[in-house]
Amino acid sequence: MTAQRIVYTGARTLALEPAETAPPQAGQVRVDVAFTGICGTDLHIYHGDMDGRVKPPGVIGHEMSGRVAEVGPGVTDWQPGDHVTVMPLTSCGQCPACLAGHGHICHRLVFLGIDAAGSLQNSWTVPAGTLVRLPRQLPLDHAALVEPIAVAVHDVRRARIEPGEQALVVGGGPIGLLIALVARRGEADVLVVEPDPNRRAVAESLGLATLDPGAEDPAEGVALWSRGAGAAVAFEVSGAAAGVTTAVDALATRGRMVQVAIHTGPREVNLHRFFWRELTLLGARLYQRADFEQAVSLLAEGAIPAADLISRVEPLGRCSQAFHALESGAGGMKILIDCRAEGTEAR
Amino acid sequence: MTAQRIVYTGARTLALEPAETAPPQAGQVRVDVAFTGICGTDLHIYHGDMDGRVKPPGVIGHEMSGRVAEVGPGVTDWQPGDHVTVMPLTSCGQCPACLAGHGHICHRLVFLGIDAAGSLQNSWTVPAGTLVRLPRQLPLDHAALVEPIAVAVHDVRRARIEPGEQALVVGGGPIGLLIALVARRGEADVLVVEPDPNRRAVAESLGLATLDPGAEDPAEGVALWSRGAGAAVAFEVSGAAAGVTTAVDALATRGRMVQVAIHTGPREVNLHRFFWRELTLLGARLYQRADFEQAVSLLAEGAIPAADLISRVEPLGRCSQAFHALESGAGGMKILIDCRAEGTEAR
Repeated sequence: MTAQRIVYTGARTLALEPAETAPPQAGQVRVDVAFTGICGTDLHIYHGDMDGRVKPPGVIGHEMSGRVAEVGPGVTDWQPGDHVTVMPLTSCGQCPACLAGHGHICHRLVFLGIDAAGSLQNSWTVPAGTLVRLPRQLPLDHAALVEPIAVAVHDVRRARIEPGEQALVVGGGPIGLLIALVARRGEADVLVVEPDPNRRAVAESLGLATLDPGAEDPAEGVALWSRGAGAAVAFEVSGAAAGVTTAVDALATRGRMVQVAIHTGPREVNLHRFFWRELTLLGARLYQRADFEQAVSLLAEGAIPAADLISRVEPLGRCSQAFHALESGAGGMKILIDCRAEGTEAR
Repeated sequence: MTAQRIVYTGARTLALEPAETAPPQAGQVRVDVAFTGICGTDLHIYHGDMDGRVKPPGVIGHEMSGRVAEVGPGVTDWQPGDHVTVMPLTSCGQCPACLAGHGHICHRLVFLGIDAAGSLQNSWTVPAGTLVRLPRQLPLDHAALVEPIAVAVHDVRRARIEPGEQALVVGGGPIGLLIALVARRGEADVLVVEPDPNRRAVAESLGLATLDPGAEDPAEGVALWSRGAGAAVAFEVSGAAAGVTTAVDALATRGRMVQVAIHTGPREVNLHRFFWRELTLLGARLYQRADFEQAVSLLAEGAIPAADLISRVEPLGRCSQAFHALESGAGGMKILIDCRAEGTEAR
């Protein structure tokens, strides 16, 4: 049996190639990868937009599940066979962010799957400290969603949503919907703003209320929904200029806006409304260990309908096709890549 | 003795005229005004920029001190002679902001001195609920600073500054300096960014560290001051586009920016930095009763050097000259108008 991996060799090129399986070093754990989800960042890499960080040839992928295969010297907390996912961050421990307790946004953060090798391979060796335990009863395909759910948990936690509060989610892609589901689990009253009819259909199939900004003025829709008060929280997950305006205008007095999406250039913001209504803007990036652990719990207790979010599963050899499907919009909400080595699927 | 008042009769025109002194109605208190400070908002009104809210002829002024002269029916908490200031806000009690406990930014807020008659007169009748008690030993000229100090207390409270944190104040006008003084009182390490040499000189005379953005790149200056970490808090008090950039760029990971100044149009904001460093933006407007009470305490205990901030005192009849001096920049930090009726100064 030969191990295999997917290598990004430059814009729009993913190659399946044989891989060496080296024993883990001190403090490391080798994981047999089960499933890897493809996310928007992976698509950006695939398009060549992140070659400054991903040096070809590089192994990408960071939303994953697997089993511990082998532990390196000094690793005592993990045993072969343990079901795990990886929180794909390593921090320097010495920068101002780390010293202030914000290691998840370390100034020299290494993100596994971007700045270092990722999980689109049969076998992945990672620092033991990045592992997060999965309960045995959680199916490993569902568990590949832990990482994006942890993003949503972090975003909702930044907003400090309280039961009964109204939360607007601007942008109904995978992260937007996960935020909506996590907020709803926290007993928020959630409304998703999304122009794409397919995405709205998925949101509605999950029982989420939606608003089509092409058909209805978001400000009017929010006023109706909130009886004129505005939303307590707005998550900006669209990355669009119009999404920023929608979120800011939607907020109630003292409302909180969480900036989740990436805006690569400066955006015009109505700072007067922040002043006048005493609004709060909170940037939210990645996650902390507590978010990962809560994401595992939410999946394990069935609070996130994982099966409904996974549109399909493709083998490692069909990675390129999966990326094509996602970029064409035909990929649905989440495509998983089955990273298990040939002959091991039945385990 | 005839009561007098200053009336704004249209852009750049303030007229001294006789005033009727009516007895207070139920729930009202008539106050003999001692001193009224002139602030930036008063200057905007004077320039005719706020005629939508201030209907000529209108009595302006809202930073004041005085003594209770007469109480209306049903008022039991106040006695003639009590030293008071006025928190010049009345709220509707029924809008979403009021119902959520944020009456100070009521959606139908009436600001005394803008939306209703203010204190540039010998005698001012106000709702009893707006009064705030002053200790007898606090000189009434100093007490005219309670209102702007309450603004600063509110801004610092919004930032939740902790002792030892570094706070950048962008803009060294009266409110900026009061924020700096209140933050320093909270044991913050404060740096004031201000291009005007006269304002920097005042800041320095108060023992505040300053940075001249015309001579030194603020980002470099902040990096040096904070040993590369950035500021925990930045107050944007300049109202300028460059001030927003300076504040956002200055912040440490998880830093908090407080938006104090008014930006009448949208501003370009680096939302990516909010995301990347998980920054927080907090709008801050006006004050709550707790801020007023803390402002009184700070003045009473000598924590704010009131005498150094009051550049001069003019009689009611020289109001126009005082406004001219302020708009020309020759007014210093704060001009007070002595509003006491003739013959009462010695009380």
